[in-house]
Amino acid sequence: MTYALLNKLTAQPGERDAVIRHLLEAGASFEDDDACLLYLVMEAAEPDVVWVVDLWTSEVRHADALTGPDLRPHVEATMPLLKAPPEQIEVRPRGGKGPG
Amino acid sequence: MTYALLNKLTAQPGERDAVIRHLLEAGASFEDDDACLLYLVMEAAEPDVVWVVDLWTSEVRHADALTGPDLRPHVEATMPLLKAPPEQIEVRPRGGKGPG
Repeated sequence: MTYALLNKLTAQPGERDAVIRHLLEAGASFEDDDACLLYLVMEAAEPDVVWVVDLWTSEVRHADALTGPDLRPHVEATMPLLKAPPEQIEVRPRGGKGPG
Repeated sequence: MTYALLNKLTAQPGERDAVIRHLLEAGASFEDDDACLLYLVMEAAEPDVVWVVDLWTSEVRHADALTGPDLRPHVEATMPLLKAPPEQIEVRPRGGKGPG
């Protein structure tokens, strides 16, 4: 397996659904990107919290995808809806079942 | 999408690779289980920490899989290698790209 990221986002109270909507719209551009193996947007039982799990064929291809013009407006719209900067947990896949 | 779980495990110092080995061996039984969509074992940049992301077709099918006889010895062998009980983060998939 490949390049993975765990992201924890905490929305301003009441803004979680708006954050999720932007994340899903931003991720629509990954559908046709064969470098994106997984982009899973989840809401936590904990209020206001969103988790995103990313799996990509490489770190470089992930960085490339983030420069896409479709993404920028969603990133900019999401930032003010968050209570704090996104928490990014660096991880390295070691195996298991799944894409990649 | 379906039933998801984020699990954070913290190994005793020096035991992370042993924990990962048990997790991968335990997960081998999921390969032929069509209810398991994703079982991703990752090591964090943070020392001793392991993350496991699970995606299943349903909570019931996940609970069923945990009763498998192949799993039990690995669970029992892993517990003493951990510094604390596994931290399980309840999440609900909202969308994105991936299996399911």
